[in-house]
Amino acid sequence: MTSFSVGLLGHGTVGAAFEALLGERADAVAKTTGRRPELSGVLTRSRGDFDDILERSDLVVELMGGLEPAREYVLRALEVGKPVVTANKQLLSHHGDELFGAAHEAGVDLRFEAAVGGVVPAIRVLHETLAAAEVHRVHGIVNGTTNFILTEMTRTGASYTEALADAQRLGYAEADPSDDVNGRDAAAKMAILARLAFGAAVSLDQVTYEGIEHVTAADIAYARELGLSLKLIGTAERVDGGLSVRVHPAFLNARHPLASVDGSFNAVTIESPAITEITLSGPGAGGSQTASAVLGDVVSAMLPPPVPPAPAAPVEIVSDIESAFYLHLEVADRPGVLAQIAEILGLQGVSVKSVVQEGLGADARLTIVVHPIRESKFLAAVSLIGRLDFLRVSPRWIRVIEEVFE
Amino acid sequence: MTSFSVGLLGHGTVGAAFEALLGERADAVAKTTGRRPELSGVLTRSRGDFDDILERSDLVVELMGGLEPAREYVLRALEVGKPVVTANKQLLSHHGDELFGAAHEAGVDLRFEAAVGGVVPAIRVLHETLAAAEVHRVHGIVNGTTNFILTEMTRTGASYTEALADAQRLGYAEADPSDDVNGRDAAAKMAILARLAFGAAVSLDQVTYEGIEHVTAADIAYARELGLSLKLIGTAERVDGGLSVRVHPAFLNARHPLASVDGSFNAVTIESPAITEITLSGPGAGGSQTASAVLGDVVSAMLPPPVPPAPAAPVEIVSDIESAFYLHLEVADRPGVLAQIAEILGLQGVSVKSVVQEGLGADARLTIVVHPIRESKFLAAVSLIGRLDFLRVSPRWIRVIEEVFE
Repeated sequence: MTSFSVGLLGHGTVGAAFEALLGERADAVAKTTGRRPELSGVLTRSRGDFDDILERSDLVVELMGGLEPAREYVLRALEVGKPVVTANKQLLSHHGDELFGAAHEAGVDLRFEAAVGGVVPAIRVLHETLAAAEVHRVHGIVNGTTNFILTEMTRTGASYTEALADAQRLGYAEADPSDDVNGRDAAAKMAILARLAFGAAVSLDQVTYEGIEHVTAADIAYARELGLSLKLIGTAERVDGGLSVRVHPAFLNARHPLASVDGSFNAVTIESPAITEITLSGPGAGGSQTASAVLGDVVSAMLPPPVPPAPAAPVEIVSDIESAFYLHLEVADRPGVLAQIAEILGLQGVSVKSVVQEGLGADARLTIVVHPIRESKFLAAVSLIGRLDFLRVSPRWIRVIEEVFE
Repeated sequence: MTSFSVGLLGHGTVGAAFEALLGERADAVAKTTGRRPELSGVLTRSRGDFDDILERSDLVVELMGGLEPAREYVLRALEVGKPVVTANKQLLSHHGDELFGAAHEAGVDLRFEAAVGGVVPAIRVLHETLAAAEVHRVHGIVNGTTNFILTEMTRTGASYTEALADAQRLGYAEADPSDDVNGRDAAAKMAILARLAFGAAVSLDQVTYEGIEHVTAADIAYARELGLSLKLIGTAERVDGGLSVRVHPAFLNARHPLASVDGSFNAVTIESPAITEITLSGPGAGGSQTASAVLGDVVSAMLPPPVPPAPAAPVEIVSDIESAFYLHLEVADRPGVLAQIAEILGLQGVSVKSVVQEGLGADARLTIVVHPIRESKFLAAVSLIGRLDFLRVSPRWIRVIEEVFE
């Protein structure tokens, strides 16, 4: 099998995670693309030579951060016709015109999914799915640190200062969180999204931004009574024949798709008359998620035009799977009933998570939630319970999905 | 400019919407792809000849529905090397092996975003973004009719029968809703998603499914007390070295990303260790949304390998935009205070949506939400209010985003 040489510029947290992930996934990528990706070299401050790496690479991944020499290296790679994948939002939001211009001129790929919104594939969806639809507005929660802080303030009533300290302790905020909490990081991402959504030359200095430093727990509490939840929202939208690109705290109606995006998660809502809206959400950018987004871009750049999926392999279909369950019983309200039910559940290995018992005239209603268990075992228990003489109606049950992602 | 000929098979609701949209967006597509798309012919039961249309087309769009002759036409187009875009979930879930095999053999594109999940770009994200990540599970709300019915039951306490009648009256359910409410439509979509997520040959007859016909409003109400919300969930996941693909009602933890997907919306959550999860949500498939997803696929098929965005155009940045606002005031609790504030707001054209007044010792707290208004006007009003002598602290305000999508 032919190989595909990837030159890596930068070896911090994300660079190291990318190197590890590339090794792990090389076989899978080879299967998808027909070529096996391997590192041709790594450039850090202390080792490697850019010209040498460029020479030996089919594609360059830029994870150095900062403006220079990242800008120079990316331009030089594009100029010699090598595609570039970057996670550098600063670079793109400052020098977008120059870099995209160079890529266009050379007819090569400049991919940057990892520069915006963690693993959320906003760039890909904007670029391809919506090529056929006119975008009117993009709203985004594009900074995980501030979303984590606001979520903490909402949940616990903590002050901004307390929630920030928590975020720092838990690794969701840097020691110097200025660019996150003052909105500048989000502003850089919105500049990139606006460029793509509207084909407009937007740079960071055109984005107005406010941060969350002055938000109080009381504001959040009052607004909650009105059904509103507070987020740091980036917006890029068409207004009066021009564009507005901005970042500021905003209350959202509880039913807005971004209102329920909590913790360090990122999300982007894309609005277009033809489609109403699409919302994409996922975890904000830790090292491994960013590395994953970078590798996704590398894979896309490796793919020849559009590739039909490889023939599918036969597979074993599993039917007896594990799930938590909700179980609803109506029973005669007499001593020992709950004990008998609990015994049957226990004998089948079904573990009870919660029970709510309510009077129902002379009878009682039991609403039970059980921990995950093989369906066959749960059904065996339900079948035994169904034969108990104190049952007033047949047992009712529904599966429960308990995972949350935060 | 060269043109790109699209042959259209089928001219029902979606076919007609696609034809209209193609005309509307032809210029924009030409700008993105360098070729202007135009219809080369339309095949319906009463007009058009398939061989003639195939001959004159660069790409075929199949919107006939059903198994035959759709299967035969798609196979013949692929065999002569013409890419195909289809929205036909039945066809793909029954004959996936044969069709994807033919596309692979001919080395041409078979795209089917519109067959699953309305405008939600689940197929694209699975195929490209996650090529580099191992998917462990896909959960989806992939049937808008059942999600609408369950949302109605949850909101209003209506019975299944009442909510179904509402859905039919409002156009969210067909006169014969069987395949929606019994889970079969969702099962077909999950077969397609499972194939893509796991590269496995899954067909509809391997998917177990249950519908929502037996769900009661009481179940929903009880579970709500436990913090759970009911959805019809499609699942495809790796279990014990095999796969489980199924559709059934399930309660979700309120914080699960799918728990807040309401009304006729669709959503898909993709889980992978490297990325935690990505959730995509958007409106379910009406004619115009499906047509939009089909056109997105056509555009993707037209794009040469990866295209760097065209050079961006300069743009006017608008700063004085409209927004709703939350305004928080602490005032001396004496007669006429609210009247004075309301007068200032009114003079600036600011219209009040809601006011909550609470006692605060001798003072009072006003929490006001106003309807959308130019920021400059709102700020002018706030500045005037800030000068009132009965104000105890400076006014505080935050923007409010009120839109919901349902």
